Amino acid sequence: MKTARVAYEGNIHVATATYDGIKLDNGKYVQEEAVVWLPPIEPQTCFALGLNYFDHASELSFEAPKEPLVFLKGPNTFVGHRGCTKRPSDITKMHYECELAVVLGKQAENVSQEEALDYVSGYTIANDYAFRDYLENYYRPNLRVKNRDNSTPLGPWFVDAEDIEDPMNLTLRTYLNGEIVQEGSTKDMIFGVDSLIAYLSSFMTLNRGDIILTGTPKGTVDTKVGDEVITEIEGLGKLKNTIIE
Amino acid sequence: MKTARVAYEGNIHVATATYDGIKLDNGKYVQEEAVVWLPPIEPQTCFALGLNYFDHASELSFEAPKEPLVFLKGPNTFVGHRGCTKRPSDITKMHYECELAVVLGKQAENVSQEEALDYVSGYTIANDYAFRDYLENYYRPNLRVKNRDNSTPLGPWFVDAEDIEDPMNLTLRTYLNGEIVQEGSTKDMIFGVDSLIAYLSSFMTLNRGDIILTGTPKGTVDTKVGDEVITEIEGLGKLKNTIIE
Repeated sequence: MKTARVAYEGNIHVATATYDGIKLDNGKYVQEEAVVWLPPIEPQTCFALGLNYFDHASELSFEAPKEPLVFLKGPNTFVGHRGCTKRPSDITKMHYECELAVVLGKQAENVSQEEALDYVSGYTIANDYAFRDYLENYYRPNLRVKNRDNSTPLGPWFVDAEDIEDPMNLTLRTYLNGEIVQEGSTKDMIFGVDSLIAYLSSFMTLNRGDIILTGTPKGTVDTKVGDEVITEIEGLGKLKNTIIE
Repeated sequence: MKTARVAYEGNIHVATATYDGIKLDNGKYVQEEAVVWLPPIEPQTCFALGLNYFDHASELSFEAPKEPLVFLKGPNTFVGHRGCTKRPSDITKMHYECELAVVLGKQAENVSQEEALDYVSGYTIANDYAFRDYLENYYRPNLRVKNRDNSTPLGPWFVDAEDIEDPMNLTLRTYLNGEIVQEGSTKDMIFGVDSLIAYLSSFMTLNRGDIILTGTPKGTVDTKVGDEVITEIEGLGKLKNTIIE
């Protein structure tokens, strides 16, 4: 099942993807462009991975990390499908990053890698933009790089875990103004979804609704004002974002 | 005015510090040890500073940062006054860190350094424990170091900004089992409260209730199970924590 949170005629609704289109919780069918798409999840804690695909780490000239390189993202960073993200005037590069976002379904503490996927309630797509500037010289990303307002499109759908046969074998793609510019597979993650949950829950408690953005493969390039960026993951849909001034 | 959030006989109350003792919002006076102290603030976003006192940076053999070194802390990390923090078995050092915690009173976007203090509603004390282990080798702290459950005592009181004459001239002290082990002044911060608010609000929106933990001076040493750690800041009170197994 695919569900979303949308605003329509001043109210917030749960929307479901059906064969006949997008159905609101009041029974009404609507067009994709007739609603405002909100992030499908409002996480208590959002974890994000740096350099979690071998090819992306080498593309940025970093050594692949020996343990997961995790940072937190604040609640101000998320924006829904068909939303806009500002290109700040003081940066040198704004990279899209198509990422599998994993949603926790229950509290997890000291979970083994074998049991880890039982703690996942579902998945969505994140475009975890990175704002790189001349000041950036730290391995672990600066808040300026990864925590700006509305800098992380999330959605469109929350897809139940049971509908995704193998989260570690999904194709990721990014389209920049209609052209494929990034393509990879979740099977090339350095630390897989199960080992990330085991790792994090080994030293802290994860809660229902927490999300993990699992990193991006090779292929990030600079973007400019007016660009339309679509990040796509097999089985999860297409997440659209427009870059504004 | 000093206010706290406490649990008493199964209910959560706002408590005020009065000349006659601790007064609950139902009019009852209670002893400090008769209530469960909750963190006085539940921040939407909690920012924390690394290496924000010259003497502490040099104590850790790090170069003083040229721009604020800020990271986020998740909501699982906070625990109230008189609470307990676990010493994990897999670490080599557990350092207390007495810090001035600054609470935002309203939304802040592109705020100038001159106006920044108008955006502060009040202050409290944080003990931002650092769990250092053999794996730690990154400049910006790992989540294992700064994001464990209940690892950041906060409180006891939220003190109104108007009651603190100069937040940049407050003595900080830590007592380990009754003995003073850390002493400093907020005037030795590398980046002051006003410049931190100006810095953060220059690239993202700060919200009412967000907090900034402003870093710790020199004097952090290892602690062990059973230790009683009291962090004190002039005008804000004393925040007590016990280290457990």
